[in-house]
Amino acid sequence: MFMHMSVTVAVSGASGYAGGEVLRLLTSHPDVEIGAVTAFSSAGDRLGSHQPHLRSLADRTIVETTAATLAGHDVVVLALPHGASAAVAAELGPDTLVLDCGADHRLVDPAAWSQFYGTDHAGSWPYGLPELMTANPTQRQTLAGARRVAVPGCNVAAVTLGIQPGVAAGVVQARDLVSVLAVGYSGAGRAAKSHLMAAEGLGTAVPYAVGGTHRHIPEIEQNLRAVGATEVSLSFTPTLVPMARGILATTTARLAPDVDPATVRQVWEAAYVDEPFVQLLPAGQWPTTVATQGANTALVQVAVDERAGRVVTVCALDNLVKGTAGAAIQSMNLALGLPETTGLPVEGVAP
Amino acid sequence: MFMHMSVTVAVSGASGYAGGEVLRLLTSHPDVEIGAVTAFSSAGDRLGSHQPHLRSLADRTIVETTAATLAGHDVVVLALPHGASAAVAAELGPDTLVLDCGADHRLVDPAAWSQFYGTDHAGSWPYGLPELMTANPTQRQTLAGARRVAVPGCNVAAVTLGIQPGVAAGVVQARDLVSVLAVGYSGAGRAAKSHLMAAEGLGTAVPYAVGGTHRHIPEIEQNLRAVGATEVSLSFTPTLVPMARGILATTTARLAPDVDPATVRQVWEAAYVDEPFVQLLPAGQWPTTVATQGANTALVQVAVDERAGRVVTVCALDNLVKGTAGAAIQSMNLALGLPETTGLPVEGVAP
Amino acid sequence: MFMHMSVTVAVSGASGYAGGEVLRLLTSHPDVEIGAVTAFSSAGDRLGSHQPHLRSLADRTIVETTAATLAGHDVVVLALPHGASAAVAAELGPDTLVLDCGADHRLVDPAAWSQFYGTDHAGSWPYGLPELMTANPTQRQTLAGARRVAVPGCNVAAVTLGIQPGVAAGVVQARDLVSVLAVGYSGAGRAAKSHLMAAEGLGTAVPYAVGGTHRHIPEIEQNLRAVGATEVSLSFTPTLVPMARGILATTTARLAPDVDPATVRQVWEAAYVDEPFVQLLPAGQWPTTVATQGANTALVQVAVDERAGRVVTVCALDNLVKGTAGAAIQSMNLALGLPETTGLPVEGVAP
Amino acid sequence: MFMHMSVTVAVSGASGYAGGEVLRLLTSHPDVEIGAVTAFSSAGDRLGSHQPHLRSLADRTIVETTAATLAGHDVVVLALPHGASAAVAAELGPDTLVLDCGADHRLVDPAAWSQFYGTDHAGSWPYGLPELMTANPTQRQTLAGARRVAVPGCNVAAVTLGIQPGVAAGVVQARDLVSVLAVGYSGAGRAAKSHLMAAEGLGTAVPYAVGGTHRHIPEIEQNLRAVGATEVSLSFTPTLVPMARGILATTTARLAPDVDPATVRQVWEAAYVDEPFVQLLPAGQWPTTVATQGANTALVQVAVDERAGRVVTVCALDNLVKGTAGAAIQSMNLALGLPETTGLPVEGVAP
Repeated sequence: MFMHMSVTVAVSGASGYAGGEVLRLLTSHPDVEIGAVTAFSSAGDRLGSHQPHLRSLADRTIVETTAATLAGHDVVVLALPHGASAAVAAELGPDTLVLDCGADHRLVDPAAWSQFYGTDHAGSWPYGLPELMTANPTQRQTLAGARRVAVPGCNVAAVTLGIQPGVAAGVVQARDLVSVLAVGYSGAGRAAKSHLMAAEGLGTAVPYAVGGTHRHIPEIEQNLRAVGATEVSLSFTPTLVPMARGILATTTARLAPDVDPATVRQVWEAAYVDEPFVQLLPAGQWPTTVATQGANTALVQVAVDERAGRVVTVCALDNLVKGTAGAAIQSMNLALGLPETTGLPVEGVAP
Repeated sequence: MFMHMSVTVAVSGASGYAGGEVLRLLTSHPDVEIGAVTAFSSAGDRLGSHQPHLRSLADRTIVETTAATLAGHDVVVLALPHGASAAVAAELGPDTLVLDCGADHRLVDPAAWSQFYGTDHAGSWPYGLPELMTANPTQRQTLAGARRVAVPGCNVAAVTLGIQPGVAAGVVQARDLVSVLAVGYSGAGRAAKSHLMAAEGLGTAVPYAVGGTHRHIPEIEQNLRAVGATEVSLSFTPTLVPMARGILATTTARLAPDVDPATVRQVWEAAYVDEPFVQLLPAGQWPTTVATQGANTALVQVAVDERAGRVVTVCALDNLVKGTAGAAIQSMNLALGLPETTGLPVEGVAP
Repeated sequence: MFMHMSVTVAVSGASGYAGGEVLRLLTSHPDVEIGAVTAFSSAGDRLGSHQPHLRSLADRTIVETTAATLAGHDVVVLALPHGASAAVAAELGPDTLVLDCGADHRLVDPAAWSQFYGTDHAGSWPYGLPELMTANPTQRQTLAGARRVAVPGCNVAAVTLGIQPGVAAGVVQARDLVSVLAVGYSGAGRAAKSHLMAAEGLGTAVPYAVGGTHRHIPEIEQNLRAVGATEVSLSFTPTLVPMARGILATTTARLAPDVDPATVRQVWEAAYVDEPFVQLLPAGQWPTTVATQGANTALVQVAVDERAGRVVTVCALDNLVKGTAGAAIQSMNLALGLPETTGLPVEGVAP
Repeated sequence: MFMHMSVTVAVSGASGYAGGEVLRLLTSHPDVEIGAVTAFSSAGDRLGSHQPHLRSLADRTIVETTAATLAGHDVVVLALPHGASAAVAAELGPDTLVLDCGADHRLVDPAAWSQFYGTDHAGSWPYGLPELMTANPTQRQTLAGARRVAVPGCNVAAVTLGIQPGVAAGVVQARDLVSVLAVGYSGAGRAAKSHLMAAEGLGTAVPYAVGGTHRHIPEIEQNLRAVGATEVSLSFTPTLVPMARGILATTTARLAPDVDPATVRQVWEAAYVDEPFVQLLPAGQWPTTVATQGANTALVQVAVDERAGRVVTVCALDNLVKGTAGAAIQSMNLALGLPETTGLPVEGVAP
């Protein structure tokens, strides 16, 4: 006799990019039954009219996002505007696994929240980056059995995965980090805005949130403190480039005094050798975003620039997968006690 | 007790786009064990240095494409230059399933081969487009148990799937067809050529093989004859546009006399209602290539332009999946008696 | 003694793409002084905040589009929503040269207007396509001294310039034309719309207005009748492809009976040999959109597909220049008695 | 009586991107007569078959690059492989103005040359970045009357123009600079290479020369020393992004001790207020590459990130214009005593 238990998953924000990607990944998750697909303004529409690529779900009808439509599922994925998830989660009860793709519960420090988001802090939830190199407990231990998970910001995941091995091992300095990111347009969401039009974005690179204002900065700093940094500062500049998906994060840090460059590679290798979704590439091969397209994979490379006294790391990932939806499902697997890699592709769609 | 039988599959051309895509799809095929990965000039290299997106196979070593390295597998996928497959297949023996992604065995008519390819015809193999609307036998019957399969040309699949329902039903005329295609760059292969450079292709549309010279023309005409056309002529113009993958084929045909426009939609609906990989979209929704990215899906739409007296169809598919690698695996499934849809994704990676 | 007379030009819609391109071209027009730059919602803004590429005009202030702000100029360029230009023009007086980039005054036939635009016809103005192969008068004669000019639709210009030589000479049939166009995103204007977002348009081809509904159809048909066609029908399908600018129009027509294919090339050569802005490429070289980027150039090629019985033409142009702003200035030059080519670049910005 | 003197200019490398752009700009230079257009492997070809966008020159025949074909011109622009320009220049005689778009004569220090290029140093020439903030003499004084000019590297121009005001004024530290650049594909030249194919570059970001190996590093450091830096170190990472043209250079530097952030903006404003081709944007508006497309314009912005203790600058320019061909012509104007801005467009082609 064979008995297969499925969990039911409701997905809010089903007409957006994050919600669509959660649904895409769930269609091939063997232990999941997709329940309600919900949204606000598109409620009542056929899902296929918003997500024509989701063939097997195209005839589903989007229902309104309410506590009632989300209730009764084992898992609820939230992709809501800032400030909405706490109230929804409160109505869902403590046994429902709630995965929040938004920012509300990522930051631990209320002051950091207020400084960058300008509102009251909604409280922090277990943080859905299983590879975060914390100890006692490990991040995976934190996520096991959790019923509330804050999914990391996409840029945060890219920068953290790129630089954390050196910070955790103390071979680079966490003060005076510099990150510059090439970011695809889906990271900006699906709402129509003038500066995100195709005619504006094709054939050009466009910086934004320059000068220390991006909301992902305190989240990155929090992660690096969690893995052992005492003093962190980060110059962070994202630039939109003409691709639909992907983040390429170039992060440099000063090499710590008296560190042998050969040690640097060993530290990065040791950090990720057993990680199913993060790979240090062979020396000399640099990550590209397309190699991670559609996959829950982060590709990392590191080099020492002895002339400049800096370690340079590049991390590529798909902002909608390892940066959002894949991170949510990976965390779901851990929270539910499923094998962590269940239902998550590691092969990118390239070219 | 549960016993799972796997077939072993060797893939030649493993460093190219078609071979890479076959490998990507096979990594999630539950009944396949990937055997030799072979190529010519890249033999000896780590697969990951050519296909960094194929994480689970990255440490495989590419071996040289020879009869010896391909021997001993249940299935061999060939992605070789024109003219090479017949000799290789002869050495592989009649029990090996050989799937040829090249053109050598697609055309039935030696004269058509010679006219468009300029060499001697190598003989035709069963044609790997299961949805081709032939009767007695159906194309699926033809493929069942086959040990040689000619995988269709990517543009051919797009035009055929778009227009064949009307041709088969006689509601459009097959003479005086006009097809214009927007084609992504991966369709041109991976060999470095000046006119295929990124700097040449970004931000521009580029026609090629204009005026009736493209080698896919006789193959399309052959398909339409196979589904019932008596007189076929086709004006066919492909244009490269700045996308890595995808074909959008716009094909128009004259509406047959005395055909009620309402009939047209019924004909297309009936043709594809039960097809797992071809979908007629709801009226008014038009296919886009990205909705099929990475999926073995063809999306089709049809409209009647009564003013012009023409039926317009648009078919979108991923040239590397439904246009090549997915078609090969779908045919493999049929040839081996596996469920046709095994291991083949239907959800596109979008946006 | 040298005395240089300048005309003053006001540009409405200065914050949009068409208005911006008119301004860009006027900055290098030796006989023009740029007057008021006007718009609606962006009135009061610094022009550079909307058009950062127009460096020499960046510190101009946009004023509101009213009869008062436009008054007092020798020339007024209108880029207004449908239906607005007639009223504005009425207030500007008959001596002001008014160039309308919108559609209001392009169609001669009120019934065609009503069918495709759904409103009352505002009357037709001299049509700003100097290369239109009319006779008695020529189109240049029509434009000489004109004080109202209707600038052609961008797709219309591309299709007309591609196919008109054959229609005018009677070597192709104008009934049963088929045009498919690859179109860049700036053609859709600057208003923020969901389906025109970068994340939606990158990496994909997107058809729209399929099946005979596009408003440029009656305008093309009108042009072809003007050059001699008695019976015209056109199947017209535009597809958005990932480029900011450019139109590549592939138009096919049935070869007229008993026409020697060699004659076809002669007809196209004769048509454009003296045209400053339209070039028939050497045989075998096909137009690309990037070769016309930023230039008032249309590149044309023609081939005969004897197998299909069709002539295939491809015309590439920049939708914002020869398709809009360049056509306006070329018409302005003719209307004012200036040399037709004054201030208009013919070299594209490529790659 | 009016007498107009023209200089004759020969352009080598006429079938490449740099040579093509020099030719494009020269077609609208009022004081230039274009002489020989030369190349190596494409000698004998019609120029239009390589540069179809250069309509007015399309029928020119490319001649072989030799001392004989280049001789007899007032100006010779060289776009040759590394190591070739010294020998050619020697044959051209001291009165010919030779503008070298290659790297051979940019570096002053033979040791830096050998370290990064691996060959013997060919000697330095006056450096063609008129805006370089040197004093006694100014860079413009150095270029006035020069007969040999080394045109700067494209990335070098972007980084230098972005950061030099702060270095020259001492408000930022030149040690521990970090630059990350988004670079378009034309910067890699026109030779066919596998990793530069459109299928490889579309939809992805690709880092290269990571870790301190790029040959533009010593040239940037040399520039910053020339404007006053005593200690310079630079971490420099270029990334290819899917655009044909453009460089967006994000450069950060530590704020010098006790510098008021308000001072920073004043320093940048003062540096460029009178520059015809470099513009500091209004506060809060960030440069994009498309705004400089086709123009000899560099757009700069600066912000102080007090949290990170760093100044962030972004500089956008067109690698083929202000980064190469425009810089050459601007230097030519200065060397010949023409007005510096002659023939050089400042308006970008956008969108």
